[in-house]
Amino acid sequence: MIGHSKPDIQKTRIANSMGRARILLEALPYIKQFRGTIVVIKYGGSAMEDPRLRESFAGDVTLLSMVGIRPVVVHGGGPQISAAMAAEGIEPRWVDGLRVTDEATIGVVQKTLVGVINPEIVRFLNGHGAAAIGVNGLDADLFRAVPRDERLGYVGEITTVNTGLIEGMLDQGLIPVVASIARGEDGHVYNVNADTAAGVLAKALQAQKLVYLTDVEGVYENVDDPSSLISKMDLSDLRRLLERMDGGMLPKLRSVADALEGGVSQAHILDGRVQHALLLEIFTSEGIGTMVTP
Amino acid sequence: MIGHSKPDIQKTRIANSMGRARILLEALPYIKQFRGTIVVIKYGGSAMEDPRLRESFAGDVTLLSMVGIRPVVVHGGGPQISAAMAAEGIEPRWVDGLRVTDEATIGVVQKTLVGVINPEIVRFLNGHGAAAIGVNGLDADLFRAVPRDERLGYVGEITTVNTGLIEGMLDQGLIPVVASIARGEDGHVYNVNADTAAGVLAKALQAQKLVYLTDVEGVYENVDDPSSLISKMDLSDLRRLLERMDGGMLPKLRSVADALEGGVSQAHILDGRVQHALLLEIFTSEGIGTMVTP
Amino acid sequence: MIGHSKPDIQKTRIANSMGRARILLEALPYIKQFRGTIVVIKYGGSAMEDPRLRESFAGDVTLLSMVGIRPVVVHGGGPQISAAMAAEGIEPRWVDGLRVTDEATIGVVQKTLVGVINPEIVRFLNGHGAAAIGVNGLDADLFRAVPRDERLGYVGEITTVNTGLIEGMLDQGLIPVVASIARGEDGHVYNVNADTAAGVLAKALQAQKLVYLTDVEGVYENVDDPSSLISKMDLSDLRRLLERMDGGMLPKLRSVADALEGGVSQAHILDGRVQHALLLEIFTSEGIGTMVTP
Amino acid sequence: MIGHSKPDIQKTRIANSMGRARILLEALPYIKQFRGTIVVIKYGGSAMEDPRLRESFAGDVTLLSMVGIRPVVVHGGGPQISAAMAAEGIEPRWVDGLRVTDEATIGVVQKTLVGVINPEIVRFLNGHGAAAIGVNGLDADLFRAVPRDERLGYVGEITTVNTGLIEGMLDQGLIPVVASIARGEDGHVYNVNADTAAGVLAKALQAQKLVYLTDVEGVYENVDDPSSLISKMDLSDLRRLLERMDGGMLPKLRSVADALEGGVSQAHILDGRVQHALLLEIFTSEGIGTMVTP
Amino acid sequence: MIGHSKPDIQKTRIANSMGRARILLEALPYIKQFRGTIVVIKYGGSAMEDPRLRESFAGDVTLLSMVGIRPVVVHGGGPQISAAMAAEGIEPRWVDGLRVTDEATIGVVQKTLVGVINPEIVRFLNGHGAAAIGVNGLDADLFRAVPRDERLGYVGEITTVNTGLIEGMLDQGLIPVVASIARGEDGHVYNVNADTAAGVLAKALQAQKLVYLTDVEGVYENVDDPSSLISKMDLSDLRRLLERMDGGMLPKLRSVADALEGGVSQAHILDGRVQHALLLEIFTSEGIGTMVTP
Amino acid sequence: MIGHSKPDIQKTRIANSMGRARILLEALPYIKQFRGTIVVIKYGGSAMEDPRLRESFAGDVTLLSMVGIRPVVVHGGGPQISAAMAAEGIEPRWVDGLRVTDEATIGVVQKTLVGVINPEIVRFLNGHGAAAIGVNGLDADLFRAVPRDERLGYVGEITTVNTGLIEGMLDQGLIPVVASIARGEDGHVYNVNADTAAGVLAKALQAQKLVYLTDVEGVYENVDDPSSLISKMDLSDLRRLLERMDGGMLPKLRSVADALEGGVSQAHILDGRVQHALLLEIFTSEGIGTMVTP
Repeated sequence: MIGHSKPDIQKTRIANSMGRARILLEALPYIKQFRGTIVVIKYGGSAMEDPRLRESFAGDVTLLSMVGIRPVVVHGGGPQISAAMAAEGIEPRWVDGLRVTDEATIGVVQKTLVGVINPEIVRFLNGHGAAAIGVNGLDADLFRAVPRDERLGYVGEITTVNTGLIEGMLDQGLIPVVASIARGEDGHVYNVNADTAAGVLAKALQAQKLVYLTDVEGVYENVDDPSSLISKMDLSDLRRLLERMDGGMLPKLRSVADALEGGVSQAHILDGRVQHALLLEIFTSEGIGTMVTP
Repeated sequence: MIGHSKPDIQKTRIANSMGRARILLEALPYIKQFRGTIVVIKYGGSAMEDPRLRESFAGDVTLLSMVGIRPVVVHGGGPQISAAMAAEGIEPRWVDGLRVTDEATIGVVQKTLVGVINPEIVRFLNGHGAAAIGVNGLDADLFRAVPRDERLGYVGEITTVNTGLIEGMLDQGLIPVVASIARGEDGHVYNVNADTAAGVLAKALQAQKLVYLTDVEGVYENVDDPSSLISKMDLSDLRRLLERMDGGMLPKLRSVADALEGGVSQAHILDGRVQHALLLEIFTSEGIGTMVTP
Repeated sequence: MIGHSKPDIQKTRIANSMGRARILLEALPYIKQFRGTIVVIKYGGSAMEDPRLRESFAGDVTLLSMVGIRPVVVHGGGPQISAAMAAEGIEPRWVDGLRVTDEATIGVVQKTLVGVINPEIVRFLNGHGAAAIGVNGLDADLFRAVPRDERLGYVGEITTVNTGLIEGMLDQGLIPVVASIARGEDGHVYNVNADTAAGVLAKALQAQKLVYLTDVEGVYENVDDPSSLISKMDLSDLRRLLERMDGGMLPKLRSVADALEGGVSQAHILDGRVQHALLLEIFTSEGIGTMVTP
Repeated sequence: MIGHSKPDIQKTRIANSMGRARILLEALPYIKQFRGTIVVIKYGGSAMEDPRLRESFAGDVTLLSMVGIRPVVVHGGGPQISAAMAAEGIEPRWVDGLRVTDEATIGVVQKTLVGVINPEIVRFLNGHGAAAIGVNGLDADLFRAVPRDERLGYVGEITTVNTGLIEGMLDQGLIPVVASIARGEDGHVYNVNADTAAGVLAKALQAQKLVYLTDVEGVYENVDDPSSLISKMDLSDLRRLLERMDGGMLPKLRSVADALEGGVSQAHILDGRVQHALLLEIFTSEGIGTMVTP
Repeated sequence: MIGHSKPDIQKTRIANSMGRARILLEALPYIKQFRGTIVVIKYGGSAMEDPRLRESFAGDVTLLSMVGIRPVVVHGGGPQISAAMAAEGIEPRWVDGLRVTDEATIGVVQKTLVGVINPEIVRFLNGHGAAAIGVNGLDADLFRAVPRDERLGYVGEITTVNTGLIEGMLDQGLIPVVASIARGEDGHVYNVNADTAAGVLAKALQAQKLVYLTDVEGVYENVDDPSSLISKMDLSDLRRLLERMDGGMLPKLRSVADALEGGVSQAHILDGRVQHALLLEIFTSEGIGTMVTP
Repeated sequence: MIGHSKPDIQKTRIANSMGRARILLEALPYIKQFRGTIVVIKYGGSAMEDPRLRESFAGDVTLLSMVGIRPVVVHGGGPQISAAMAAEGIEPRWVDGLRVTDEATIGVVQKTLVGVINPEIVRFLNGHGAAAIGVNGLDADLFRAVPRDERLGYVGEITTVNTGLIEGMLDQGLIPVVASIARGEDGHVYNVNADTAAGVLAKALQAQKLVYLTDVEGVYENVDDPSSLISKMDLSDLRRLLERMDGGMLPKLRSVADALEGGVSQAHILDGRVQHALLLEIFTSEGIGTMVTP
């Protein structure tokens, strides 16, 4: 059955397509630069909650994987955990102003991170054609941890990382999606901060990039001054900044400092509320958000 | 610092140990026979609920893995799912006497299987020194499914299995622990019967053995006659038996028939209430429970 | 040294970039479909002569290679050979209307294809970041040939292809650029038609696609009727067409028929005068030019 | 043909088996600890002569191999050699109280070690299901040697070891059984002390353990005092002991010291007259005999 | 320290060397043809006994190995065994005119083949720079056998060959030297005819060539007519010849027939009394002795 | 069809062949010594122009390759380039007595080296059974270069070598034949001195030998004194010689010094006018020409 195409229609189509081809080609140098390297992405905030942003994230990560970059996704799930605790009527307990993770709480943490959020991320990534696989710190002892502060219960600090597990997955073309719990030396499950877990994993894997998707535009020198948004700084700048900083950015920036000292080449604080923030960072010359280099 | 041991104590110790050595050696022919082969184990019932049996199961699976056999664990979680549904106040719905898996139900199924039971199994296996890894049907599209009956909602029938994912894990010395959900062709999560999933997986992997850990002693020719317990039958016996059988054993035995037709070499219905049932089956000459061969 | 970026500039930049990200993502399904497959491209005509088209071609091929597709470029060089012969004062000789390739002529053919055109293509591909490598039919006896017609002199018909040579290069991530000469059974150099060589090579490599870059819009059912441009046909359509066809398209279409019969999945006659014709064909849903399938 | 098992018989059988399963599981931590490591075993004395001990040794080594440990057996054969010499009427010659290995003697040594003892060990190991392979120092120049003392004739000191040969065998799952002769730099066969060869080989292979099966209970601080049996000492203890020691234990202990200095992790002097001495040492917490650590 | 060479001396040397270079080059087509193929050589007779022929054999085999051909040497040792039996005063026993291999006899056979002849061949091959390794049928159960005739005692017929063992050695560049004993199904050592073992091994390894070094010039159509020496025949000629033949050539020719039927490409009966018979056969156009092809 | 050979003819043939076998065996130690090592050969002069010498060269290189040595051929082509320039009427331009390589000149250089000389060498090597492959510095950026002197135009100095490209070819058993052009950092083609390119490549590949085939007998201490021909010197001798030397040998000897300092084990200046000079050097004990060692 021979099919025909009207010449003028084909011409219009070609004209339209030309721009697309040029855009694909502009990505070439970035693909070339980052092929084969590991990019650890801490995923959370609006990018995880807003369905439209979630789709854009899934597409971005899948594309990175398809062109030969090796993304590793690390996620937490604070808000969903809080909601699940409320639904189960678990009262948060506090010691010296810090929340305690008791037996009941860690149960909800595990159930929510591993049973709800993690397979959900895997499912929508695979819906874009990726081959994502859910992992948590218990799998083949990916994360071993010790208690961070005995008074806080099952809150852990990572002591060892089974990098072979993640590397094995990357070698098979899989995208690991990591839920941030760990196995304590006592055999119990521990909750570990996802921002920190991302940094520790990036360092252990000697990643090229460590990327935080956040709900701010980047790092500000002065939080009250929108014009003080930092586009680029190095490790010494970051250390000075850390001395006079507090708030939610602190665990991320400390992890960035640790990762860069430990061999990671670049760290980024991106605005996850921007669609395709990840692609924009990796595939454009200026990047977006705040970049920190050693 | 030189240490001494009293000669008579050493002698007593040696005498005691001798018997242990002999028992280890009796395992030799079985290790030789099954090294490198895949054993798919459907895990559930008392063996999963009773802490003492759980420990014995974990030890057995770890030992199999350490001596070079390749166990794959598949689990369901009916009772825990029912409990979780009740706790969340979800009313079961029925169509023609069959339970419907609606949106809320599949959410509880996923959360319980993937977030509670699966990591728990992984955790106690790794506590025995194994390198277990949790997997579910969404991971790298391990199980793709279609709806089994449109009226039943998100209940799926497996259409394809990503055997490469499991084989890759086995090649790295990992013990896959599989939660029986699947990705529907519509992208949604589906619940799949764990007994069936085990059989399908055993067939897809061309396993040497398919083992069901149950809460009965084995298969009875006549359920009411304890002396009719079958120790051994072949596929043609099984087919005759299937014609006049009903009840909970049916999905297991149908899966056994499918698996044996599809290339699996042996299937076993074991009494999971017996400690170390798995080791006894694999490492003794008579085996236990009911064995079915092609 | 901390760098800042003005928030409004960043916003504009993001807005502009968004469209680019979307276009990259639209390529995803095609990358997924064709990763790891071999695409043999017959390169010639305007796409080789026009500097702007040459750049666009080089970018296209490099991009294919970077995203994991395995392009193999085959080229001829008729016009340049004619020019070089004229420059050296070699008179073309004819037998029954067919041009004779004598000792002097084959010398010019080899010098021009292997010494001028081939390294030029390699050089501009590598200028785009590719890792192209020049090859000709003499290298490790890539093409062995017998004389096609004794009266025509050193004009050969390919009898065997050393596919291992090309596969080895593809496995190392190289882009082979193949000059269409061959080693005769008599040890002499032979000229082989580049259109035919591309088809033979596609078949020997069991390529996914065989693509001809030409100076027409595609294949016409009726050369005099622009509206008869064929967008799609299958092998049986092509065979009917071949019976009543003549002219320059004939060797291409015969090679297409041979290649499709021999296991190649798709063949394309593209308009090489269109920039990025290759990308448009592979990365858009409608494709361009004429596609032939088995 | 359906087979039945009487329920009460099965119950008795299960009860009996339970203890066996527990013993198998107690071996788990040791299997885990030593999998993949090399254990060089000097085999000789009663363990080689007494048929019952020989069987127990064969079982032990086969089990080690089956669970993934990599045993290498080195043997001598003093008594058999003496007997063979007597049978052939060869008179031993002495120089300064040391026995001379002349042309006739080395012939008997080679014939007995390589032609009688070595294949015998290989044969009974394989009778237990192992895949043992006989090797001697001439094979692929496994051992090169120089004369130890010119007056002693063909008695050699090992200068180089072809570790690749043994490692290649281990990688194929074979158990090398090594006869302690060597190729001299002059091309002649040389006799090398088997105790020394075991130590040199353990060091060259960077073995985890070097084990001597002897006809004593272990090392005594004071040979005349049975209560001075040493269960554990380190390299510095051993060195002090060596200064005031003589007799048959000397070459073993010197080899132990050399091996531990050269990177071997543990050395053991075991009582080969105890059945399953090897398994007891490796698979129980207290071990038996004398252990020396760096 | 600058060294000088007198120009005229260098010229003479070059002149002399020229012929050598040409001879090396004449070997090229044969090296090309046989590289990577397996050649099984039955070694025995004068070639094994005469020191000069032994040297020439060792050189030939080493050269084959060095240029990438894969020789496997199989040897017997009839005369040495008879001598050893006489020395030990063992009386040969006969049943129906056939010699019986009893317990004492098989002991001498093993000791002589494995302990005397085999290491001797290994040693002189390695003296030429080869990496030969001694193997016998007990090693990793290389040869399994059943009794050939119960009345004859430990005389075996090979039932299975562990080709993986030999292939593993060839892959490591080793030259296996095989002593023709086997493991009986009863665990006992059996003597197997070396001519037959060579043929069975060639077939199991799918060798390119099976070569017998004998003490005759080749096969004669008529043993009494020296002019009836056969240079070349095919399998059907051989079968006709076998019908009317007897004597020592029979087991060789039957093995040749079996091997050629089983996939071996060429078999040769060479005169081992000719120095370098092996090289002459493989590296010259006419070959020597009798060649049989399928 | 049985074939016979007359016994006396066979005897004569064997006698004749015996000498050939001995010569083959004399090559053994050299094959053993150089197997697996890389030998970079600068090819040019009479050895390239004289048809008889060319044949001898092709045989030599093919033989080296067949016995497992890894030859890499580097060639220039001064005389042919000059002839081609004259034929095209290009006037050589000079700056300060040095020839300028302008746009037209580099075109002729590329066309002649890559299009005429290189495929010619490949073709006659393959005619001897080798698997040679033509390469030039543009292929996968084998040679990157910077201008040597801005006034000289497109004359380059090599800055980086893509050794992986050549090693990949050697691993596949190919013989790389390298044309000495390079890619400038500006993307343009550059001419590089072939003597220098050979030295740079030998160093980058950590070759065992760097061999120059020249039209002189070797290096003379005093060019006017034929008796001062040097057979052997070391790097310190060479450095002293370089201080008082000029003329055509200079670039070769400087490259030799660089290569030896950079890890190459031996360098040779051979008389390419002698047939089989290469074989004589590598396969005889005295070697020919001048050898330089570190």
